[in-house]
This record gives sequence, structure tokens and C-alpha cells, in this order.
Amino acid sequence: MKTGIIQQSNTFDSAANMGKLRNSIESCVDMGARLVVMPELHNSLYFCQTEDPAVFDLAESIPGPSTAFFGALAKAHQIVIIASLFEKRAPGLYHNTAVAIDADGSIAGIYRKMHIPDDPAYYEKFYFAPGDSGFHPIQTSIGRIGVLVCWDQWFPEAARLMAMRGASLLAYPTAIGWESTDVEAEKLRQRDAWTTIQRSHAIANGIPVIAVNRCGYEPDPSAATGGITFWGNSFAAGPQGEIIAELKDEEGVMVVDLPCSQTESVRRWWPFFRDRRVDAYDGLSERFLD
Amino acid sequence: MKTGIIQQSNTFDSAANMGKLRNSIESCVDMGARLVVMPELHNSLYFCQTEDPAVFDLAESIPGPSTAFFGALAKAHQIVIIASLFEKRAPGLYHNTAVAIDADGSIAGIYRKMHIPDDPAYYEKFYFAPGDSGFHPIQTSIGRIGVLVCWDQWFPEAARLMAMRGASLLAYPTAIGWESTDVEAEKLRQRDAWTTIQRSHAIANGIPVIAVNRCGYEPDPSAATGGITFWGNSFAAGPQGEIIAELKDEEGVMVVDLPCSQTESVRRWWPFFRDRRVDAYDGLSERFLD
Repeated sequence: MKTGIIQQSNTFDSAANMGKLRNSIESCVDMGARLVVMPELHNSLYFCQTEDPAVFDLAESIPGPSTAFFGALAKAHQIVIIASLFEKRAPGLYHNTAVAIDADGSIAGIYRKMHIPDDPAYYEKFYFAPGDSGFHPIQTSIGRIGVLVCWDQWFPEAARLMAMRGASLLAYPTAIGWESTDVEAEKLRQRDAWTTIQRSHAIANGIPVIAVNRCGYEPDPSAATGGITFWGNSFAAGPQGEIIAELKDEEGVMVVDLPCSQTESVRRWWPFFRDRRVDAYDGLSERFLD
Repeated sequence: MKTGIIQQSNTFDSAANMGKLRNSIESCVDMGARLVVMPELHNSLYFCQTEDPAVFDLAESIPGPSTAFFGALAKAHQIVIIASLFEKRAPGLYHNTAVAIDADGSIAGIYRKMHIPDDPAYYEKFYFAPGDSGFHPIQTSIGRIGVLVCWDQWFPEAARLMAMRGASLLAYPTAIGWESTDVEAEKLRQRDAWTTIQRSHAIANGIPVIAVNRCGYEPDPSAATGGITFWGNSFAAGPQGEIIAELKDEEGVMVVDLPCSQTESVRRWWPFFRDRRVDAYDGLSERFLD
């Protein structure tokens, strides 16, 4: 499964951001991609650094202008595109929503981010209602894709449920970075933890995983913090968690041949699904077991 | 929490193996350990390379000779010891059982391995009935320890349930290695996957993790395979999954100060327990969701 990964830095100019994405999608097509994945909320700056009611004006319906824009590209090049949009679902009801656009330009399915973070400079609970449709991979013409978004990557439960529902790969559009006051050792620990836990989802489930992050520096409009330096480092891991390809911290595009066909073989040797103790997992649906 | 990790290679001579363990425990005590963890089934060779009914003669009751032996050491040095034994529970009923021996020499609790592997040279389903008491950390005088065993390490569910029940660290006595025909790249992928998924349990749950493996070569008594080279590489990871200390592939003893007190701080910054979507995890108790 030849998969294009677009790691991009953005400015306030959405039209320019989208033009750059279009160019990168076309580069992926030139390199043979049949699937292209973009970072989280790729059309704009990462607007969650402050809580500002005016920012909701950025949201759009699905289908809407962005699905039309990327749908036309998907159809023109006969590829599947994973977009990540700020969705206006109803007046006053917004989601952080990934859209899988099929190779004919139609919407194959959406995934509304289930786990919503909230910490200084990532005030997502202000903007996004938690998704209400659970963890379901999206069936496309080229495979069944487990689309999850950013904060979801820290939760093994999300990856497992996608795999149990037949996902042949996991794709994480992401916007994660460092606050300017983090010390270097802490930065490395955070980035390494981020890579490690996503690789572990590949291992636990025997399927490839891709993480597609934004990069570049974005100031905090409120100046309350020093802004975020998005750390890039997008990567693809095979079904044993092995890194197949990765980018550094600068903008870049790569096309990776994901070894989805190895899943059967890996699961024969590492038969975790055979041995899961489903009789003893009930507590997982509790908040805590105290 | 100063924790001793004993990585040992064994022979057919159980008395000699136990003597070596005693010496290593005393070394750990000299280095200030209050907790000592030994590898899986540390008294004998790894006997699961073949299916042989005579091997059940190695099993013992709990309490029994081994808990008396290690209990005396625990009491003499006022330390907690995690032992890993071949338990005879009833005629014809055997388990792979970890025992937490408290600092007064008493048995604080046991954990019967829940996930049982079975693949060539690891015929554990022949010897061990799956544990029937679920995933419960053991309360000792020095803390609440999430004791899991080897194959459990591949299952995020086990780690999560231990953390949800208040484990302040996870400890994995282990016996894992390479078959002689594995190519070098495959060996590295396997070992790296093993390290990665255990580090991910630290990250997901914000608690330290230690993996205590055996090392050395043990031939296959049936000569059906080339035997197992246990890869050692025991390690300790902090609550962000960072490697604190690790051994190579040879015998060794180390005492690591596990930063259990960082859990509160790490979970404030990475509040995964706050954000788990417990309303959407029900499917985890199913075999598959097809």
C-alpha cells in the first residue's frame, strides 16, 4: 500500500496552506501513492492555543468546501486522501473530524476524534465535542483504514478496537510539539514516548501504523506561553513496530510502501488475538478500579 | 524504590541455579535494594521446549520449598522478592505463578500467569493452565506491585488493568529468546518490539516498568529446533517510558532507583486516565468485532 505522508508547517493564510498541500499531494501521486495522509487540522494554524469564540468561524460542514477541494484532487488522481477538518456539525456543536475521501472523490467515511486533550496551549476541550460514534475503521476502495487523531495515539484501547474491527493499518493525523520552556531532555522524552507508544500499537495488533505530524513554530496569540514548535518526525512503522521511514523536524513529503500483507504472517507468529483473555478484561470499561 | 534486577543463565542443576540466585540477591541487598525481581521460572532450565509429562515432577506447591528458600532470604534481609515458580495447584493442575514474598518472609500474594503462549519451543499451553484470578497488583509492605509474567507483556489490557487497580510499578519476570535459525534482522526486530511494547505500558499508565529476562543458551532436548538463546536485555523504564538502566545479553545484576513518585506529576501532564473513553470501550471484552 503506497502511502504518502505530508509533513507541513502552516501560516495564517489558509489558501496558501491548501495550495501547498495540493502540491504535496501531487508529489505523492508522482511517487506512486494510492493513499495520502495529511497532518491534523492541516488547513490552518493550530488554533487551540487560546480559547476564542471567534475561532469557531473557521469551522465548516462536512461535506463542505474542504471536502470539495480534496475530493476533486482525489478523483483527478484516483487516490484516497485522509483529511483532518474543523467540523461544524450543528449550531454550537463542533468536532475535530478526519475524513476519508475515496478515489472517486466521494466521502468514504468520517471519524470524529474521540479522545480530546486539554492542557496549556492545547485547549481542545473548548472547541471540540468528543466524538460519539466510537472506533470504527473506514472502508475505502483500497482497504479498511483505522483513522485516529493525535491524542487518540496515547490510548491502546483505540488502536485495539480499530484492529478488532478489521483495520489493515492505523493512520494518525497529528499536531504535537514542544512548549518553548521545555528543557531539551524533556523534549526528547516526550518525542520518544510519542513514537514508542504508536509503534506499540503496530506491535500489539500486527498492523502498520503511520503518524503524520505538522512542523514549524506557531506563536501563542495570547502570548501566555512561548508558542508551540511542532516537532514533525512523522513516521511509518511496520507490523512488528519497526520504523520503515521517518522525516526529521522540517517540512517533507515521503511515499512509503506499507507492508499490510505481512499482518497474516506476523499474527501467526505473534498470535496475540488468539490469546487475549477476553473473559478477564471487563474492568477496561471503568474509569478506575479502586 | 531501589529495585534489584537479576539476569541469569541456568543449567540443569537447580540447586546451583538457586545458589547463584541467593548470591545475586545478596549483591542486590549490598547495593541497597528493597525489592528484588528474578527471571521467569528461575530455578530450572526453561523446560517448555518440549512437551514431556515427566517434567511436571519439577512443579511444587505454594507455599512450598521455594517460597521457604526465598522467604528466608527476604526475611533475613528485610526485602521484598518476586519469585517465579512452576506451581502444582492440584493433581494434574499446574500454573506459571509469580509470588511476591514480603519483607517479613510471608507470602504477600501470588499472580498466576493469565496469557499463556504456545509456539515452537515455547509449549506453555501444555504445562500451564491459564490463571483464573485476573489482573490484580499485590500489596506489599513497600508498595503495590503489578506483577505480570512474560507473554503478558504483549497485552496492553493487562498493564492497564494493573494500573487501574493501583499498581505503582509493573514487573515482568521473563524467559524470551531467539531460535537459532532466526536471521539477524528478525532477531533485532523481535527484541526491539519486546522493549518497545513494555515501554509503552509505562507511557500509557504513567508508571515504571521493569523487564527481567533470563540469558544464555539452552538446547532443545528433542533436538527438533536449534534451542533458544535467551536474549537478556533486562531493563527498567520510567513513567514516560524512558530507559533508566539496562543490561546486555550476559549475566548481570543491577539495582535501579525506580521513580515511582513521578507518577502523580506525569499523569497531571499526560492525563490519559482523565480522558479514557470508557463509554466506548465495551468491545474490548470480545474476541473480535467482525
